[in-house]
Formats: sequence, C-alpha cells, structure tokens
Amino acid sequence: AAPKRIAVLPGDGIGPEVMAEALKVLTAVEKISPARFATETHLIGGAAWDAHGVHFPDATRAACGKADAILFGSIGGPTAESDKPKWANAERNALLGLRKAFTLAVNLRPATVYPMLASLSPLRPDIIAQGVDILVVRELVGGIYFGAHTTDGDRATDVMEYSAAQIRTALKFGFEVAQKRRKHLTVVDKANVLDCSRLWRRVATEMAPSYPDVVMDFMLVDNAAMQIIKAPAFFDVLCTENMFGDILSDAASVLPGSLGLMPSASLGETVHLFEPSGGSAPDIAGKGIANPIAQILSAALMLRYSFNMEAEARLVEDAVSAVLADGLRTGDIALKGQPTVGTAQMGDAIVAKM
Amino acid sequence: AAPKRIAVLPGDGIGPEVMAEALKVLTAVEKISPARFATETHLIGGAAWDAHGVHFPDATRAACGKADAILFGSIGGPTAESDKPKWANAERNALLGLRKAFTLAVNLRPATVYPMLASLSPLRPDIIAQGVDILVVRELVGGIYFGAHTTDGDRATDVMEYSAAQIRTALKFGFEVAQKRRKHLTVVDKANVLDCSRLWRRVATEMAPSYPDVVMDFMLVDNAAMQIIKAPAFFDVLCTENMFGDILSDAASVLPGSLGLMPSASLGETVHLFEPSGGSAPDIAGKGIANPIAQILSAALMLRYSFNMEAEARLVEDAVSAVLADGLRTGDIALKGQPTVGTAQMGDAIVAKM
Ligand SMILES: CC(C)[C@H](C(=O)O)[C@@H](O)C(=O)O
Ligand SMILES: CC(C)[C@H](C(=O)O)[C@@H](O)C(=O)O
Repeated sequence: AAPKRIAVLPGDGIGPEVMAEALKVLTAVEKISPARFATETHLIGGAAWDAHGVHFPDATRAACGKADAILFGSIGGPTAESDKPKWANAERNALLGLRKAFTLAVNLRPATVYPMLASLSPLRPDIIAQGVDILVVRELVGGIYFGAHTTDGDRATDVMEYSAAQIRTALKFGFEVAQKRRKHLTVVDKANVLDCSRLWRRVATEMAPSYPDVVMDFMLVDNAAMQIIKAPAFFDVLCTENMFGDILSDAASVLPGSLGLMPSASLGETVHLFEPSGGSAPDIAGKGIANPIAQILSAALMLRYSFNMEAEARLVEDAVSAVLADGLRTGDIALKGQPTVGTAQMGDAIVAKM
Repeated sequence: AAPKRIAVLPGDGIGPEVMAEALKVLTAVEKISPARFATETHLIGGAAWDAHGVHFPDATRAACGKADAILFGSIGGPTAESDKPKWANAERNALLGLRKAFTLAVNLRPATVYPMLASLSPLRPDIIAQGVDILVVRELVGGIYFGAHTTDGDRATDVMEYSAAQIRTALKFGFEVAQKRRKHLTVVDKANVLDCSRLWRRVATEMAPSYPDVVMDFMLVDNAAMQIIKAPAFFDVLCTENMFGDILSDAASVLPGSLGLMPSASLGETVHLFEPSGGSAPDIAGKGIANPIAQILSAALMLRYSFNMEAEARLVEDAVSAVLADGLRTGDIALKGQPTVGTAQMGDAIVAKM
C-alpha cells in the first residue's frame, strides 16, 4: 500500500518537542504493522511568521491539501509579547485558516480521567469516582466564528449563523459516536434565546428517530456549565455549536487534571487534523520537560480516524496507560515530591511499552 | 420618610415559599430600623399565565414601574411539561421582559464559599481553601440576547451587538465594585474572534486609567471556563458580556455547593431587581423544604443597592452566617445523615438572629 502522507505542523513553544515524541511513536507503529508513514514538516504560527510574515503560509496549506492527515502541535508566544505581529492572533489565524481551508467541521475533545491520576482532578474525589468520560463534539466551521464581524466606530456586531446542513454534519457524528459509546447524546444550546439553537433542536429532533438506540436529551448551555462541574458523570457525548463547544470543551478538559493529557481531532471531508487540547506553553518551551502524551494520543486518534488503524490506535493508548500505571510522570502530572521524567524519557517509555 | 415600595413577584415553584421567608426578614428589619416597606404582590410566569394568558402581564409591569425595588422569586414548571404554553419559555419571557422594560443593565452574581459549608463544594478541598469569593458582573441588556433573531427555513441567524456606551455601563460598575473589594477586575471576552469583544477591550483599556487602584486583566472566555474550576482564587470581580456572563456566572455559582445560597441583583437606571440564582425547583415545590437563604440574601442585596441600607444588609447577611454556623441545614445543604429543617424554620431562625 502507498505510504500515508502526514503533514506535520509542530508550530511554536513546546510543539516541536512533543511532536518529536509523537513521531517516535509513529516509527514504532511502522515496526509492528505494514503501514508506512511519509511525513513532511511545515511551518505554522509564529515560526511561519519568522520565515514568511504570515501565520498560515500557502506552502503549508498546499502540503496539508495533499496530505492524508494533519498532525498539529501548538501555536502561540509569551503573553507579554502577545501584541507583537509575530504573535498577535497567531493561533486564531492559523487554526481558523486551517478549519476554513479544509472544512474541518467536527471537533472531538475527550475528557477522560485516568484512575491513577484521579487525585490531580480539581473535582472532589467522590464526584470523580462516579466516572468522568465525556466526549465533546463541537461544530467547528459555523456559528459566530464565521459569520460577519463588523465594527463601526462605537458599535460592533458579530453574526451567529447556522444552516440545517451544518448542524446535521455535527449531530450525525454525535449520534454515531454515541452509538459506539454509552448511547447517550446531550445536545447543548440556548434554545430559550437563540434562533440558531432552535434550529439545532429541530434538526436533532428530526434525526433522533434514526438512532433509536441512542438516548438524546437537550440541555441549556448555562446548565451544562454547572453540570460539567457538579455531575460530570451525567455526560457521555455532548454535542454543541462552535462557541459553546469552545467554552464547554475547555471546561471539561480540566477535569482530568492536566491538559497535557488531552488530545483532539478536527474532522473534515477530505482530511482531518489532530492536535493536543493544550497550548504552546512558552514558559516551559525548550526545556525538555513538556508532557508529550496529548500529542502522542493525538497521533493515536489520527491512526483511528484517518487511517482506520483501530488496533494500532489502541496499542498506543494502552502504552500510555501502562507508563502512567508504572508511575512515570512529567512535571504537569506529578504530585508534590513525586520524581519526574522529561519529554523524551516519557516518549521513549511509551515506545518501549508498544 | 415615605415607605419603600417593593414589587414582590413570587412566581412559580418554590418562589412563593421562599418569598414568604424573605418578607418575614423585611418585617424584622422594620422592627430595628426606621425604614418602612410597602409591599405589593404581583403575578409573573406560569402563575400569571393561569390568570392572564401571558407570562409578564401589564399590571405586573405597571406595578414594577412604580416600585422602588423588585423582589423576584423564580419561574418555571416541571421539565416534563415544558412544552405546554403555560410553561413554554415562561422564564425567558418574564425575565427578558423585565430586563428590557426597566433596562436592567448590570447583573451581579456572587459566588462565595461559606467556610462551614466548604465540604459541599464540588471542588477539591485544597482548591477551596485558597479562597473562593467571585463577583460576576454581567452585562444584561445587550449582546446576542437583544440583537435580531431570524429563522428562514433551514437557516437561522442571531446577532450579537454592542455599543461602547452599553459596555461602559457594565465596566463602570465592575471597576467601582472592584475598588470596594480586592481591586482586581478580570474582563472576559473572546477578542481573538469577536469584534464585540475587541470593542470591550478598547473601552476597558480607555477606562482603566481612571481606576489606578484596580488591577485589570483580560481573559479569553474558554480560558475563564477552565480557571473558574482550576484556580477560582484568581478571580475577584469578573466582568463580561451577556451570553458569556450567563454561562460563567452559572459555572461560578456551583462552586459554593448549593445554588440555594446564592442571591443576585440586576441593576437598572430607575429600579433594580433581586432574585435567587437558582430556579423554581418544581420537584420540591409546596413541600416546605426549599432553602430560603438565596431569597433572603437577595432581599439583603435590595437593602444595600436599592435602599442604601448597608448596616441592615449586613445584619441580614450576618444572621444567615450565624444560623449556618449553628449547623442549621435545609436538605440542599445538609451532609448525608445530618438533620434538616424546613423553609419556615430556617426563615424563623434567621429572623431570631437579627
Ligand atoms: C484560537 C481560537 C480561535 C480557538 C477557538 O476559539 O476555536 C481555540 O480556542 C480552540 O478552541 O481551538
Ligand atoms: C431564562 C434565561 C433567558 C436567563 C438568561 O439566559 O439570561 C437565565 O438563564 C438567567 O441567567 O437569568
């Protein structure tokens, strides 16, 4: 079979360091499967600005367009420098550019507590013990992100808009992934205020009979923000529009205790993108101490969703669980006083478990 | 002095029960101060629908217009009946009607952990121990709530809009209340996506020099949703636009462990409205077991913000703290096995402490 072409976009901050570990893992996958990966590394974000004066260069876009999958690191510079053109809106420009260019319509962000790391969670132990395993399915190319943005002197306007077709794309994925999980889909909206939300409810209500095995319910976004904290075990799949998904997926992603553990996938029609949920962490960049697990698990999602390599994806996920069970900890997931390992040691240990 | 005219709107569910206790407290205040209260009770919500076929009758609106303050209970019916005209959008119709009619531009929602109830919080004890005392200041008559809402077949649109003047009203209150607190104002927005948010940043940046004693910072809404859970001690005053405020004030309000404790104030130009943060709890309505504290603390906020009776407001707040310190608990704030009191007993105990 032809090798799978992967556009590798390490980006800024800790991106290149954690990406190196994900690439080690992919090399290890090649050793135990017939799959071959052809990776091509390209600039994005601040790194691209230095070379080309833009955050999302045409060359990067073209390479992504030819790839079978995009493996993305992270973007962003030090907060203190956020006004400099190199960094100003680097993340926005690159991510929204990619989402629009490849119609990455559905974003998946799991929030799963690893039992051996449960004490890192900001939630009370008895709440965690009820189980936290949420998959946020976020619509990613509609809503207020891509409607018109206008400023006219002392007035500003942003337009949220949805078509039934856009909503159906996200909900279809939500229903289908719920069928493979605990068969519970919660559609989150603000239907008591927004016409867009009422359209979401209409479309969801039309689709539900096609998924008789899935229990679907509606929840208002303000209530969802409470339940994620008070009763996270309620949720299985949470599907929502772009802006609410931005907020709620971040809220859910802190429940496991470290963003450094959480991968994400953005699914498009022709190509998907995979990236850690966390950011570029410029404060620890270049020190070799960042946690590579989110990047490695993002590569596992790539194996699953882009290459249909479920067994290999599980193998990677199991290797991650195994090193965590062994007590291996980078600084972000270590308890006070616990010994820590660096980025490369963590990556090597995961490879060794495969 | 002329008596203070209070429009009392008990509403639905537990509203009338908890309102009765707040009125007891106001009667107690009359005994220890020269202030006199003239209360007039009016229908709103489902109760108003039964009598007049609308959720916000003209008579109620007229009474509120003549009042010096509005004391509001709660609105809403059983979830299973939420499609019936009596209940469909009852809360939305009544609350948005009141906000619009009286330009209730600034909403205040405190989230404060009572030390003796800290174990009720869904957060880990060591996070709570760092202190949770957040005041959410939410813009209440602008944004996507009051922009155009349009549905055209398979397309829907909602418009978020802000004027600099609207933003200034909310931020002015935010800066001023921060001056009376820990002098830290966090302005929450999505300035990397929304023009409205960039206008918020512009206005906030213009205003900041007038409040040199306040440390102001900006935070993106997705990050704020994380920090409220991970590091709530970071926040003092959190000021934001209408929709983000809806979501974040609900998230913050669960940190203290019971919504039944949290009051709110909605400040207008001519009249203010005070209401519990929680809802109508139809499942426990009529049983005499609802927690009246949020309603009583809402009355205390009325004394403070509408009648400038700071000493009396504190007296009520201290009485609430005292009964909690004594171990009095309604069901919502009782630990497993702890004995509980009913709505009226709690109200009477608070009055007795005054
Ligand atoms: C950088 C920003 C535009 C982006 C978003 O809001 O979608 C980010 O927060 C995310 O969630 O990927
Ligand atoms: C009932 C609803 C319209 C309202 C809002 O979203 O403002 C409520 O959630 C609130 O926060 O008071």
